[in-house]
Amino acid sequence: MVDVVVASRVVLRTFRFASSPHAWRRGAPRLRPRVARVLRTTLLATLARPHAGLGFFAYICSMLDQIKVVAFDADDTLWENEKRFRKAEKLVAERLSEYGDFDYISSELYKTECANMEDYGFGAKAYILSMVETAVNISKGKVDAGTVKFIIDSGREILHNPAKPFPGVVETLRKLSDSGAYSLVLLTKGELLDQEHKIARSGLAGFFSHIEILSNKSGREYSSLCAKLGIEPGQFMMVGNSFKSDIDPVLRLGGWGVHIPFEVLWKLEHVDEYDHPRLFRLSSIDQLPGVLL
Amino acid sequence: MVDVVVASRVVLRTFRFASSPHAWRRGAPRLRPRVARVLRTTLLATLARPHAGLGFFAYICSMLDQIKVVAFDADDTLWENEKRFRKAEKLVAERLSEYGDFDYISSELYKTECANMEDYGFGAKAYILSMVETAVNISKGKVDAGTVKFIIDSGREILHNPAKPFPGVVETLRKLSDSGAYSLVLLTKGELLDQEHKIARSGLAGFFSHIEILSNKSGREYSSLCAKLGIEPGQFMMVGNSFKSDIDPVLRLGGWGVHIPFEVLWKLEHVDEYDHPRLFRLSSIDQLPGVLL
Repeated sequence: MVDVVVASRVVLRTFRFASSPHAWRRGAPRLRPRVARVLRTTLLATLARPHAGLGFFAYICSMLDQIKVVAFDADDTLWENEKRFRKAEKLVAERLSEYGDFDYISSELYKTECANMEDYGFGAKAYILSMVETAVNISKGKVDAGTVKFIIDSGREILHNPAKPFPGVVETLRKLSDSGAYSLVLLTKGELLDQEHKIARSGLAGFFSHIEILSNKSGREYSSLCAKLGIEPGQFMMVGNSFKSDIDPVLRLGGWGVHIPFEVLWKLEHVDEYDHPRLFRLSSIDQLPGVLL
Repeated sequence: MVDVVVASRVVLRTFRFASSPHAWRRGAPRLRPRVARVLRTTLLATLARPHAGLGFFAYICSMLDQIKVVAFDADDTLWENEKRFRKAEKLVAERLSEYGDFDYISSELYKTECANMEDYGFGAKAYILSMVETAVNISKGKVDAGTVKFIIDSGREILHNPAKPFPGVVETLRKLSDSGAYSLVLLTKGELLDQEHKIARSGLAGFFSHIEILSNKSGREYSSLCAKLGIEPGQFMMVGNSFKSDIDPVLRLGGWGVHIPFEVLWKLEHVDEYDHPRLFRLSSIDQLPGVLL
């Protein structure tokens, strides 16, 4: 899909390049070094997908050109997070092993988390509270205070996430930022203070013109974000690891999605995935400039 | 202080009323019913404070006229909240009475809350986690699982706050909103999801052009809010019950404060209060239109 889009952009750029003297003057210095590469990609893409045709390329291309805002999910898109929850869960399950094996404890925890979602929402504090409740339940009220303290402490470790950016993140954000072609936005879901701490520790805040921490990411939140930014959903692209939170609601709204899956995903974020003309699937964030620039 | 300000506004309004044919035409229908009342207030205020003089009135008046945004704190300003924490604390202290009296447990909880503030921040989930930790500590690891569950459940009740607006809140917001003279903003501190739920339950969201939930309210947050709203701090007024969070940082920044104390205030919000030319002290929110309209 990526090379189709790159190819599409090139078709439009090349068309503009040739047809407008103004674009020629303004666009030539930026376009020239990319022309050979892009024409080669277009050719390869066309040869690989003769059924798609240039019409489709031109359509996607003209649509892509409308994108004004590129928003990024944070946890497990810009830095690692879910593994800290897994580690805490594993430690606690070992401590509670007299009451059941890992799979049983994990499934009981998941049930409790789902039941508490309305009250507690997402995040580490919610996880600790649900884990303590699970321990009380599966032990039939026998769990000791030391174990309760152990659960709190191991869950608290989640909050001390150094939020070190994944390889390629800083370079990608810098390229997009330096291009001046898009406003970059950070859009993360979870507990307010915890997310603020991680954003500060990551050192990435300076790349973003707008940072928003949400309790949930559904069509409603994306819709109101677009309104706040004064753009149409078709001008909005979301980059993230969760198909359920980052991709599906944005595609349904008419926006663009870039799905970069991470190796672990919380159960509650699992959902059926699908293909879509406005969806790009990348294996690494450093492929993003290839789509957008 | 309030009548001084009302008087000051009247002096300026009366001056405009008399001096500008345009203001006369435009302002007359709105001003006329208030003229008699206002002139009487001015006279009384001047008689009561002959040392202040009309120069001071005119100064405050001209400054007040610059206010564009009036922001409201939510918990214990628009609806009751702190009492729910007190109630939970009382119930838990009774349950833990074998380990100490209320004052002891309360002071231990406060110490734990302060120590956890950096990790957990403000709010009910933070309170529950600190209360469980306090119970483990003061019982020297002997607290039973049933009591831990009791703490979680009683703390969870805090999250089910119906957020019923205080008497006079709806009318006040409606008057200010209908006047069209100010943008109204809701600015609350705490846990994201909990605050969102309360805002939704209160039915007040429609009055506000901007709603922001913050992890803390210090000069930095107010400063960045003013920047976001495109106003100077002198054009910003904050209405709230906490001198520490709602008033002091805004006055220091150059903004305006309206302090409406509530009968209970969390220990961590206690701070020395002081007088200030840009500070109004009201006993009830329905006095606010008298200051602003």
